[in-house]
Amino acid sequence: MLTVDVELKDRKYPISIGENLLDKIESFYPLKSGDRVMIVSNPTIAKYHLATVENTLSQLECIVDHVLIPDGEQYKTLDSLNLIFTTLLEKNHNRDTTIIALGGGVVGDIAGYAAASYQRGVRFIQIPTTLLAQVDSSVGGKTAVNHPLGKNMIGAFYQPISVIIDINTLNTLPKREISAGLAEVIKYGAIFDIQFFEWLEDHIDGLVSLESSLLAYCIERCCQLKSMVVAKDEKENGERALLNFGHTFGHAIEAHLGYGNWLHGEAVAVGMLEAAALSHLNGDITEKEVARLELLLARANLPTYSPDGMLSNEYLPYMKRDKKVLGSKLRFILLKSLGSAYIATNVSEDKVIQAISHFVE
Amino acid sequence: MLTVDVELKDRKYPISIGENLLDKIESFYPLKSGDRVMIVSNPTIAKYHLATVENTLSQLECIVDHVLIPDGEQYKTLDSLNLIFTTLLEKNHNRDTTIIALGGGVVGDIAGYAAASYQRGVRFIQIPTTLLAQVDSSVGGKTAVNHPLGKNMIGAFYQPISVIIDINTLNTLPKREISAGLAEVIKYGAIFDIQFFEWLEDHIDGLVSLESSLLAYCIERCCQLKSMVVAKDEKENGERALLNFGHTFGHAIEAHLGYGNWLHGEAVAVGMLEAAALSHLNGDITEKEVARLELLLARANLPTYSPDGMLSNEYLPYMKRDKKVLGSKLRFILLKSLGSAYIATNVSEDKVIQAISHFVE
Repeated sequence: MLTVDVELKDRKYPISIGENLLDKIESFYPLKSGDRVMIVSNPTIAKYHLATVENTLSQLECIVDHVLIPDGEQYKTLDSLNLIFTTLLEKNHNRDTTIIALGGGVVGDIAGYAAASYQRGVRFIQIPTTLLAQVDSSVGGKTAVNHPLGKNMIGAFYQPISVIIDINTLNTLPKREISAGLAEVIKYGAIFDIQFFEWLEDHIDGLVSLESSLLAYCIERCCQLKSMVVAKDEKENGERALLNFGHTFGHAIEAHLGYGNWLHGEAVAVGMLEAAALSHLNGDITEKEVARLELLLARANLPTYSPDGMLSNEYLPYMKRDKKVLGSKLRFILLKSLGSAYIATNVSEDKVIQAISHFVE
Repeated sequence: MLTVDVELKDRKYPISIGENLLDKIESFYPLKSGDRVMIVSNPTIAKYHLATVENTLSQLECIVDHVLIPDGEQYKTLDSLNLIFTTLLEKNHNRDTTIIALGGGVVGDIAGYAAASYQRGVRFIQIPTTLLAQVDSSVGGKTAVNHPLGKNMIGAFYQPISVIIDINTLNTLPKREISAGLAEVIKYGAIFDIQFFEWLEDHIDGLVSLESSLLAYCIERCCQLKSMVVAKDEKENGERALLNFGHTFGHAIEAHLGYGNWLHGEAVAVGMLEAAALSHLNGDITEKEVARLELLLARANLPTYSPDGMLSNEYLPYMKRDKKVLGSKLRFILLKSLGSAYIATNVSEDKVIQAISHFVE
């Protein structure tokens, strides 16, 4: 088992990475006999893993309830959040309860926000079951729900007490979601670590076919990179913003298509290409580097073109509403070179449209 | 103008107390020219004060929007919260916006929670316009909305950047709400400060008739007492719990009657008497001290009996659901003597019922 410790200002928490962790009571430390637990999951994930987790927690003599929210980004809403609150109250859960998120990013985001908000904050444990959630949304304490007018507009910064990453959960994940997770993996290489980017170029096929040792290293490296950034910048005032590489474009794609049509990672893949093209137009990254990024994304079976019928000028209205816009100015994460990103605030709208146009079929 | 500085772990913020503060641009520091502001209020308060605040902020060259939520505790809901989010998004407010709560406790709690949650946190200024909010809910960073199954069950600890208490706002407040505020004022004396309790016994009539200099001192003293406690215990793990004196009983009354029928302060007044009687049964406070508390509450025109038809044994089911219950054990704030409170965790249900029965007509 690998462990990454995430250092926060006033405490730290462990991310455990390994096989069959959900079967072991040690994985659930610091839960102990008599503790009340509310597992938040969705029907798809519950089918595979809920019984396992409930069984292990019963061995630990915890008192376990669960609540299932509908599967899909379109259910990342205040209504799903309220379903969790109602269940907690109906079962008389108090301030000393622990909420466990068992699922992908949507479950993690809603359950985390529920933990942040229920009685103004209860303990929270994450069990991310998608590659995307394992490398991204389970680290850093961002929780949220969507609003019809914008993604992740309502939420909190709230840190878990532990994260349990059981690699075996990836075996039941659709191939398309593995690829979506690889988009965020590739992002880490692109913005922070050229060596890791090159390692990915060497091992992308093994990752696509779920070789355990490659996955474990890959997840560990991503968690390390993200936790280093989060430790420095918990509230996203500075360096953490670099993690949004590709996301301003990606969110526009998701908002345009309606949440839940493209996977988040798929939208981010195209968004990263558009941001990379914008970097090139801005005089930074070379055309050859943009092509390397495009090839790696394609080998991970990710889309490399704007969705059918979404034109270059259709991105901007969404971008202007995005919360990464600061004081009405468009703000982008661009690449100086592969492995090195920066924040650009003075980019013309024309260049943005021009960059996108390379990826409109 | 009086100022109380509230010391937090990593920063401090000022509470300004005085007359005609809403007319002065200095009151709104640190807002400055070009800042975007969303005022949250309700129609009742807006009628008296919204134009004044908007006018002063316009002089400061802020860009001001407002949203009104329906007046009343029954509207302290996720729906009202969502109305604020929708307005913020429709008007393209970004992370750098400031939410101003202009109103009583309900407006402050919802607007504060909106500020905590919108884009995971934006700046927040409180302008409490009721005595209750001025001495209580504007200090300490507790924000929340209600759930049909429990009061204040969904929320966050979120601190304002400043609190502006304009005593003139009390002139348009119904007498009943002045009394409700005095319930919390009397609470501070009862749990923390026998000298202040005696000062209240000497000046309660002047406070009821809104003498400015008495009000200013009284509000200052309450804010000092509360801010001292909050500074020591921001997240309510210890001493801050003492502020809940009378509230476990009071919340049961409010839940039984349906939110919005009795005012919060009215329910707390009776709750304090019940908690005081329980303290006496527990061997602490004398009968004479209970009578002094009862007399002071009565002179402030507050109820001193359980609501018509609410029997002693009807309190417990609500209490068991209250979030101040810890690990299924009933927990009460009791009085050692007037001016000195403590947390009791081993109180029998029989004694609780017996204490309540003194105040059932």
